[in-house]
Amino acid sequence: MREVLILTENELRQAVTLDIESVSLIGKAFEQLSAGTVSMPPILRMDMEDKNGEVDVKTAYVPGLDGFAIKVSPGFFDNPKKGLSTTSGLMIVHDADTGFVRAILLDNGYLTDVRTAAAGAVAAQALARENATRAGVIGTGVQARLQMQALCMVRSIETILVWGRDAEKAAACADDIERATGTEVRVADSVADVVTGSNIVVTTTPSRSPLITADMLHPGLHITAMGSDAEHKNEIAPEVIAEVDVFACDRHQQSAHLGELHHAIGAGTVPEDMPVAELGAILSGTIPGRTDADQITLCDLTGTGVQDTAIATHTLAVCLANGFGTKIAN
Amino acid sequence: MREVLILTENELRQAVTLDIESVSLIGKAFEQLSAGTVSMPPILRMDMEDKNGEVDVKTAYVPGLDGFAIKVSPGFFDNPKKGLSTTSGLMIVHDADTGFVRAILLDNGYLTDVRTAAAGAVAAQALARENATRAGVIGTGVQARLQMQALCMVRSIETILVWGRDAEKAAACADDIERATGTEVRVADSVADVVTGSNIVVTTTPSRSPLITADMLHPGLHITAMGSDAEHKNEIAPEVIAEVDVFACDRHQQSAHLGELHHAIGAGTVPEDMPVAELGAILSGTIPGRTDADQITLCDLTGTGVQDTAIATHTLAVCLANGFGTKIAN
Repeated sequence: MREVLILTENELRQAVTLDIESVSLIGKAFEQLSAGTVSMPPILRMDMEDKNGEVDVKTAYVPGLDGFAIKVSPGFFDNPKKGLSTTSGLMIVHDADTGFVRAILLDNGYLTDVRTAAAGAVAAQALARENATRAGVIGTGVQARLQMQALCMVRSIETILVWGRDAEKAAACADDIERATGTEVRVADSVADVVTGSNIVVTTTPSRSPLITADMLHPGLHITAMGSDAEHKNEIAPEVIAEVDVFACDRHQQSAHLGELHHAIGAGTVPEDMPVAELGAILSGTIPGRTDADQITLCDLTGTGVQDTAIATHTLAVCLANGFGTKIAN
Repeated sequence: MREVLILTENELRQAVTLDIESVSLIGKAFEQLSAGTVSMPPILRMDMEDKNGEVDVKTAYVPGLDGFAIKVSPGFFDNPKKGLSTTSGLMIVHDADTGFVRAILLDNGYLTDVRTAAAGAVAAQALARENATRAGVIGTGVQARLQMQALCMVRSIETILVWGRDAEKAAACADDIERATGTEVRVADSVADVVTGSNIVVTTTPSRSPLITADMLHPGLHITAMGSDAEHKNEIAPEVIAEVDVFACDRHQQSAHLGELHHAIGAGTVPEDMPVAELGAILSGTIPGRTDADQITLCDLTGTGVQDTAIATHTLAVCLANGFGTKIAN
């Protein structure tokens, strides 16, 4: 008789938080991904149009880890009207030697929030100016908050600008970020105000048309675009991709199919074979990231299964060490 | 606070068995699939070569059902050397209105076994001669046993021939089938003996080279090929696909990429646009199946997410009605 460990969101929140350890874990995962040893298939995605819903499944196998994770992320966009969260889901950790199910992490999307924010910090570490002090965020959701928290762990941020379509939500988001980071936070009047006033900008929206345009760029800027994870989403104008000095991403193939690179190739502003720096390759020193304080850099994050395997196996180890969870004999 | 219901293999085995109700359920699922209302993305597949392992994820959304399932099927082929089963895994049932996780079905592959065998019975119902009495099975694993049990529910089978590469395993399989079905079962000397001596043959192997060749075909034969579910697997010679009167399958697109059709197209024995009858279309009467007792028919089963959603949502309903499972507050 085998056992499966069931972990609740509450237990998972106790086990792992967005901290410098999570950031380091995700950075290492990207290095493994770019080193070519990881097996990571394309994302499974299913749309349920009559429900305004979708589900994504991601996975990756990292040789050397004792487990691999499968992450299931539903997104149902009418949920907020019912007072429910848009996203939910879970991660499954399998034994890497037998394939057997070891644990179910009922995180309702929490671990995805953590690993996504951690990836933003990794992107800033790899590409943003060391002396960046002014940050900005486009969007007012959970990731707007978490991305700014993560960024403050890796750069000495002094001021943060927030922009969202809904001024009330932007104000609430600014308050939350100020409380969480102890940094001075202001609501900006426009995307252009955020970008021109910041050294580092993170875009966190599900936008279907570009928010950041080429006229907003200025020397030394770093942009992390984390909103687009599907063909129809687009936060960055195709001209921007052509103008930046370094175009980086978590996974080249995904950015070219689901992310910002996809739109730039489609618009013809960049060639299909344009040079792309994967974060992992920059982190491991295989290819350069920012080489000059005045360069403009951009990192497109589409979200990868290797992040899920990294956070899930780490979280399970912490939970086991703490005796968390309900064991189901099976 | 929401609840997630955790169901063990034991509970699932009590809730659902391979019976005529499961067969009917799977037949209905195929009809829905071929009617075009179902959303079913391509299978996610990841190989872990250094572990001789793989994992498949399947899903489908059937409008009208209150849930959709995601099925995770690991296959680790060194497990038997350790005294462990090759396959394992689980199904997750999500609420179709919110995407939230309703239940985890820790079936270790049991529900896949049931829905796969049920699909074999559906294929025989749709395509085999009404008066078929002689059946044969190639392979000696769990599906060899279950396919013959399922077949005996839908046709009046009097004798069964079994062939496997390992004579000892074939004998054990024959004994098990005889006990389960009450039918006379014999071990055959060759694949050719099975095929020439049967009205209905089911192939259940992971073979990488064809087992059934064109010279074995005879009038009135029906073959169900359920072994191939990946590019490199192949049970039926390309010439056979060209010679049969009706080529059917569970899902055209999958057969053309992962199944027997894929090899025939690759070998050039059939054109890419050859007429293919999906099981669901035959069952709903949209296109004819067998129209003459002397026709030779073949059905390629690659396994579909719609079967998983059908069996999982049905099983969950039975479990809820019986008060099965462990509720986890989350």
